[in-house]
Amino acid sequence: MCGVIGVRGASRNTEASILAYLGSYAQQHRGQESAGIVSSNGEQVYEEVGMGRVNDFFTKERLARLPGHLAIGHNRYATTGASEEKNAQPLLIDCMHGRVALAHNGNLVNTEQIRDELVRSGVLFKTTTDTEIILQLMARSCAGDLTSCLTDALKQVEGAYSLIVMSAREMIAVRDPRGFRPLCLGRLPDGGHVFVSETCALDLIEAEYVRDILPGEMVSLRVDGIQSFFPFETQTHRPCLFELIYFSRPDSMVFNHSVYVIRKAFGRQLAREAPVFADVVVPVPDSGVPAALGYSEESGIPFELGLTRNHYVGRTFIEPVQTIRHFGVKVKHNPVRSVFAGKRVVVVDDSIVRGTTSKKLVEMARRAGAREVHMRISSPPPREPCLYGIDTPTREGYIANRFTIEEIRRYIDADSLQYLSYDGMLAIAQSTPQTYCTTCWTGKHPMPIHNLSP
Amino acid sequence: MCGVIGVRGASRNTEASILAYLGSYAQQHRGQESAGIVSSNGEQVYEEVGMGRVNDFFTKERLARLPGHLAIGHNRYATTGASEEKNAQPLLIDCMHGRVALAHNGNLVNTEQIRDELVRSGVLFKTTTDTEIILQLMARSCAGDLTSCLTDALKQVEGAYSLIVMSAREMIAVRDPRGFRPLCLGRLPDGGHVFVSETCALDLIEAEYVRDILPGEMVSLRVDGIQSFFPFETQTHRPCLFELIYFSRPDSMVFNHSVYVIRKAFGRQLAREAPVFADVVVPVPDSGVPAALGYSEESGIPFELGLTRNHYVGRTFIEPVQTIRHFGVKVKHNPVRSVFAGKRVVVVDDSIVRGTTSKKLVEMARRAGAREVHMRISSPPPREPCLYGIDTPTREGYIANRFTIEEIRRYIDADSLQYLSYDGMLAIAQSTPQTYCTTCWTGKHPMPIHNLSP
Amino acid sequence: MCGVIGVRGASRNTEASILAYLGSYAQQHRGQESAGIVSSNGEQVYEEVGMGRVNDFFTKERLARLPGHLAIGHNRYATTGASEEKNAQPLLIDCMHGRVALAHNGNLVNTEQIRDELVRSGVLFKTTTDTEIILQLMARSCAGDLTSCLTDALKQVEGAYSLIVMSAREMIAVRDPRGFRPLCLGRLPDGGHVFVSETCALDLIEAEYVRDILPGEMVSLRVDGIQSFFPFETQTHRPCLFELIYFSRPDSMVFNHSVYVIRKAFGRQLAREAPVFADVVVPVPDSGVPAALGYSEESGIPFELGLTRNHYVGRTFIEPVQTIRHFGVKVKHNPVRSVFAGKRVVVVDDSIVRGTTSKKLVEMARRAGAREVHMRISSPPPREPCLYGIDTPTREGYIANRFTIEEIRRYIDADSLQYLSYDGMLAIAQSTPQTYCTTCWTGKHPMPIHNLSP
Amino acid sequence: MCGVIGVRGASRNTEASILAYLGSYAQQHRGQESAGIVSSNGEQVYEEVGMGRVNDFFTKERLARLPGHLAIGHNRYATTGASEEKNAQPLLIDCMHGRVALAHNGNLVNTEQIRDELVRSGVLFKTTTDTEIILQLMARSCAGDLTSCLTDALKQVEGAYSLIVMSAREMIAVRDPRGFRPLCLGRLPDGGHVFVSETCALDLIEAEYVRDILPGEMVSLRVDGIQSFFPFETQTHRPCLFELIYFSRPDSMVFNHSVYVIRKAFGRQLAREAPVFADVVVPVPDSGVPAALGYSEESGIPFELGLTRNHYVGRTFIEPVQTIRHFGVKVKHNPVRSVFAGKRVVVVDDSIVRGTTSKKLVEMARRAGAREVHMRISSPPPREPCLYGIDTPTREGYIANRFTIEEIRRYIDADSLQYLSYDGMLAIAQSTPQTYCTTCWTGKHPMPIHNLSP
Repeated sequence: MCGVIGVRGASRNTEASILAYLGSYAQQHRGQESAGIVSSNGEQVYEEVGMGRVNDFFTKERLARLPGHLAIGHNRYATTGASEEKNAQPLLIDCMHGRVALAHNGNLVNTEQIRDELVRSGVLFKTTTDTEIILQLMARSCAGDLTSCLTDALKQVEGAYSLIVMSAREMIAVRDPRGFRPLCLGRLPDGGHVFVSETCALDLIEAEYVRDILPGEMVSLRVDGIQSFFPFETQTHRPCLFELIYFSRPDSMVFNHSVYVIRKAFGRQLAREAPVFADVVVPVPDSGVPAALGYSEESGIPFELGLTRNHYVGRTFIEPVQTIRHFGVKVKHNPVRSVFAGKRVVVVDDSIVRGTTSKKLVEMARRAGAREVHMRISSPPPREPCLYGIDTPTREGYIANRFTIEEIRRYIDADSLQYLSYDGMLAIAQSTPQTYCTTCWTGKHPMPIHNLSP
Repeated sequence: MCGVIGVRGASRNTEASILAYLGSYAQQHRGQESAGIVSSNGEQVYEEVGMGRVNDFFTKERLARLPGHLAIGHNRYATTGASEEKNAQPLLIDCMHGRVALAHNGNLVNTEQIRDELVRSGVLFKTTTDTEIILQLMARSCAGDLTSCLTDALKQVEGAYSLIVMSAREMIAVRDPRGFRPLCLGRLPDGGHVFVSETCALDLIEAEYVRDILPGEMVSLRVDGIQSFFPFETQTHRPCLFELIYFSRPDSMVFNHSVYVIRKAFGRQLAREAPVFADVVVPVPDSGVPAALGYSEESGIPFELGLTRNHYVGRTFIEPVQTIRHFGVKVKHNPVRSVFAGKRVVVVDDSIVRGTTSKKLVEMARRAGAREVHMRISSPPPREPCLYGIDTPTREGYIANRFTIEEIRRYIDADSLQYLSYDGMLAIAQSTPQTYCTTCWTGKHPMPIHNLSP
Repeated sequence: MCGVIGVRGASRNTEASILAYLGSYAQQHRGQESAGIVSSNGEQVYEEVGMGRVNDFFTKERLARLPGHLAIGHNRYATTGASEEKNAQPLLIDCMHGRVALAHNGNLVNTEQIRDELVRSGVLFKTTTDTEIILQLMARSCAGDLTSCLTDALKQVEGAYSLIVMSAREMIAVRDPRGFRPLCLGRLPDGGHVFVSETCALDLIEAEYVRDILPGEMVSLRVDGIQSFFPFETQTHRPCLFELIYFSRPDSMVFNHSVYVIRKAFGRQLAREAPVFADVVVPVPDSGVPAALGYSEESGIPFELGLTRNHYVGRTFIEPVQTIRHFGVKVKHNPVRSVFAGKRVVVVDDSIVRGTTSKKLVEMARRAGAREVHMRISSPPPREPCLYGIDTPTREGYIANRFTIEEIRRYIDADSLQYLSYDGMLAIAQSTPQTYCTTCWTGKHPMPIHNLSP
Repeated sequence: MCGVIGVRGASRNTEASILAYLGSYAQQHRGQESAGIVSSNGEQVYEEVGMGRVNDFFTKERLARLPGHLAIGHNRYATTGASEEKNAQPLLIDCMHGRVALAHNGNLVNTEQIRDELVRSGVLFKTTTDTEIILQLMARSCAGDLTSCLTDALKQVEGAYSLIVMSAREMIAVRDPRGFRPLCLGRLPDGGHVFVSETCALDLIEAEYVRDILPGEMVSLRVDGIQSFFPFETQTHRPCLFELIYFSRPDSMVFNHSVYVIRKAFGRQLAREAPVFADVVVPVPDSGVPAALGYSEESGIPFELGLTRNHYVGRTFIEPVQTIRHFGVKVKHNPVRSVFAGKRVVVVDDSIVRGTTSKKLVEMARRAGAREVHMRISSPPPREPCLYGIDTPTREGYIANRFTIEEIRRYIDADSLQYLSYDGMLAIAQSTPQTYCTTCWTGKHPMPIHNLSP
């Protein structure tokens, strides 16, 4: 999972890299492993890319080394394994189009075969990223200008990509034909334009939301204006439903939904599907808050912020050797005892992946005096790893692939456990007429998968 | 404002410094400027004190240099001015009682005269802290053992002090006779004892809350057991009401109140005193959440978490030169547009100090589409600087000393503005029979003030 | 200018990366800007490359991430301009030969044309280094195995290269047919082999010097033994004479010369060519010491270490605003007054580039009481920039291109100034029968030059 | 061992702290453990004191926090044990004379008794330094002004002290009546004054040497001029002979000797006392260089800089597990083989403490081909720990207390080993009529010793 941003100021005075930095900061929840910005003043291209969070990596000195009114930024999630510095983005290369940088959110599914062919034909690779595959295909294309060569390259790949490409003179945004990952267009106060993954990034830099980049659309910003193309074959749209459930920020608009509003609606639906006699509804902060509010409103059971969240979390903590039980949960959450003492409590979370955190929270609720603890999850249990850019467990990692719901309930020691139904979820999500990628629940892929390795 | 903690493990194996570190981390909201721990194995005394947050300053290496089953910790608020490293605590000195460390929460009001007298009699000072005054008086006392000399010293000072003193063999906790600042006693799983400012620190280290240290009480932990004294003249108790309103964590028990519960009760009372026709109640996170929940419950107006808070705040941000309006507020809060759009909104906060943040939040609400914005504050406007340990503005810094409430309303551009009444606040707070320090509202000091400088 | 090292341990237990680190440290004088090591255990390849000195960049943690019995290391000089992190070496890529790393000392002279052709044929570049050109040519070659493809690539380039290539299974060292830069082979105590730029690196890791890699020779180390090839057309040898005069460490053997001994011989010859009546010979430490000893021995004038050198030099210094005169020289050197007071002094240095340091040293000598100051330089004045890997000034940067020797003498304010003659220098250097690259004095290049930009 | 400096600029524009920083840097060899400067503009006093080398600890930012035309600086040697940050100097305190800072070079011998008495009378200590004892005595004195109280305090202590005291208005330098440690006065280009431990610090800041502060002299710099007192009883002078042999920089004038010249004279005397038939004289750099030059001149045996010293030494090195023999010596020194091969070599060093380094150097010389290795030491073997401020081994730590010279020779495996004789050393040193402290050779203390602990 990643966040991308592209800024093209209307005038030479626009501090594009600072806006890219702030936008990336607003999208920090989409990836905290690495951060990078490439900027240009229309002639020179500048690059600062490295490991760490946006606001740790970028200092005043670094930003000062990124002049110009064009900039693209990227921040990446800590995926297991290939967490190397050289895989950090944007990736900047030199080719017949001059210096070109690319920031990519998503994952391709036919890269292994392409990479093999390229290597066999004498191409050398510096990274293990999908992004370099796209750039190598683009560099080898004879289709003509940058836009054409990029199109040519993208026609050869399959999978999810919301990407932003920048040369010294041009900025291009593309969303794959199925539209797995979000990408939208905003207007800067100075009249310039900006591409971002989520609208919350527009808010911080005071850009106005214009519209979503459409699935299969390519938008080019040049000195002579803005242009839109649809160079790919049309496909059924498959925006990722997990963006709405878990990944995006609640204050963002994603796929034309207010994330906050749809999460509340999931909570309401959950209350209809899985009611319980209880005294209080408590969310797991911060992700479970909107669904818990929805559950509370629909059920009439009072909402309480009974679990506080510690905001200074940063560094790894040093634990005592004679370990405090459930240390990791304790350092993040602490119960307000008076909310739990003697009460029947509904605890609402957005998902259960491995079940360990839920188990600890149920125990925490009981030790705080809860009489009954009812776990309610505002999405169905996922069972399939995502191939389109979300960092998920393997099939075995999903608790729902190893246990029945009743077994999970016993494992986490809740008095009851219920998930939102798949149909209930879709009914809510399709309030705007839209198809979704639901592979993580159904296992049905919207396209053939070529890659063999995990 | 500061947080203090003292740990005395039951056995030599207790990792007292790690518990002090975790407890200080839980009390991080009480002070982020400096952090320190002094530990002892009953023979040697070890010290690590420096600038920065608890979990930034303390690394694995530093904690490894703090062995032993006794430890006291301190974290301090960034008060204006004397923010020097050498004022960081605990303060460790060598005197006829051997090596003695002291951690102090609170502020004294007759130190200037004492310091002058001490200096004239040939005492040299290394710091400008009240804490050193107490230690100098203690070192010069001929009263006998450590407890007696400490008592002798404290009888000469006036003001607020919740303090923890440690020698290689003994740990002593004292709360001043008026009991301005909280201090309580817990029991460790291994049978040892712990003193903390707030109960949330007990939760993280799995200590059980035993009881509050009483105003005027001195509790000594030695190898031969726990002893309690009341060595001072009795005074009317004056616990600080601001601890309940703003300073303490909602998941703490302070002065026998659940902070979360009393803040909700302030919100309910506010709804009774200052009702309004509106569509939605939105708190300023995180401090306004319990009061907003109380306001919502009492008024029946739905509660929405319409302002999201950014959790990665750390470093200072680099701002664009052509400044984004209200940058500081934007980087902390962002509105969920759908919550505000077309609505009459009650925004609930716990206090207004200078008014600048409120002004920006009202504008943010309006730009997100709010039809009306009604500001409700769950405490009366304070007007007097605190002399007892809270970092407050000068008299002129309080907006309520320069403007009428109607003028403030116009300044922050709200459709209406109402504060909780002083009587309403006291009515709620006195639900447990208790007198409070209310000097910041009334200007009436519970004792004569000797210090002349600010 | 750079230092390279390649280590192939005889057994799986050899800590190749630590040996590469120590060898690079011994070669630190050849480049302090960046440092890097790539290691392999025969299967996986590991990489740590970054900015800074060898012993600053490499920590225990970094070295622990470089397991295996194969390793190559590189350290680079701070050349003006392209001082970017991504140009740091070794350069590691993935191609049809698997993962291949390359460390390069030297500079090519026909890269511009090759790069243009490659870009036009669809190659993308990540760096601006000559090294990437070699790797791209190698990746595209269809010659067969790694050795063959590397040979094929090198046949297309012209210029100076002493390079070490490593795949997971093989290690190859090559020296260009003219042999501009040194490269030699050593044997490890465990029976393994090592390639280094200078023999001083062998000493630190207790490897035994075996022999120089010959100009045009390619040596391959594989599990089945060591092999030597001469795949290129024979050329007249052109080892760089500046290595002997200035660049190499005095305790190294370079081009079959003891650097210390030949520098003393330059000093003796200088005494013969440029005698003077004087009381004392003082070197500019550390580079002028051997020549000064030679001058002293030949002339019979006593040698004194009259200029001390400060050894703690590290960080940039903070200077007073009302600048101390000649601050930079003062912070490095300080005179022993008694050596200079009332004396006629011969100051010996190995070269004068811009003349500013010499000017300051002469003034320093005079203020320390010298009656006369005679400057003697143990090499002739260079006039041409080096294209083969030494960081030199432009033509205009050389003081000898702008002024006569008498003008320089007046500028540095010496009583006399004499350089070693070109013929004198060659006479000494050719004591072993050998041709040299003397382009920096003669301007005559040993090959046609294709690159146009500086 | 420490270095001290005090700067009093003639005008408000003098950047005293930058001069103190540069002077401390020049005196870096006197102590690398901690560094500190206290400055004043005549009203406020500023302080920056911490661990590390002068040019690591002091950044531009730190120096900018030290305004004013008065400053004192201190750098301290890493003595075993009490290496705590709070013992770093200058020590700054507040007392009836206002804020007073003190920088101290030397060691007192009657502090234990004084400290006990002070503690018993109610004094608390923050540090374990002698310096705090002096300040406590001064603060308690009723003698009158700062100068009088300081004199009163110093009359109560015994031992070595060259110290500089600074208040917001005054700067005082004092040297104990026996004059163990050096201290001298210089004049700044702007007419102001400066006190330094060694004259090399004057050179860097372009101050002119005026004269040594005399044993027992107190010099006060105030706005109304410079004053000199001799407040103590006269004692036989006992300047430390080790300053000349080993500790001071060769380019300093210490106790009216050029350190370089006297070291050469020790070498000449050594050649007279301990001649040998040999081919070459090689110093252990850098400390043995002047003595080796003297030995060479007197004996007529050629001098060669046959051991090179690595100048990038900084960080600790990471060693291979299968240890390289004598790693520590190898990383510092490397032989020039041609100097040793087939030769009879005299290796000259200034002292042997534990013998381990000498042993390794002899072996290094033999492996480089030396036919014979003759070790010559330019001072007699010391046997007593120093109580006056030099960091020395315990009695048992000195190899000469455990072995005869013949046994040492066998241990280090030299063909011969000879030390300069005690009488020979004194004969040279007394070329200026002067008595010395020679306790480390004779064990005879110049005063009664009261402290019991080591």
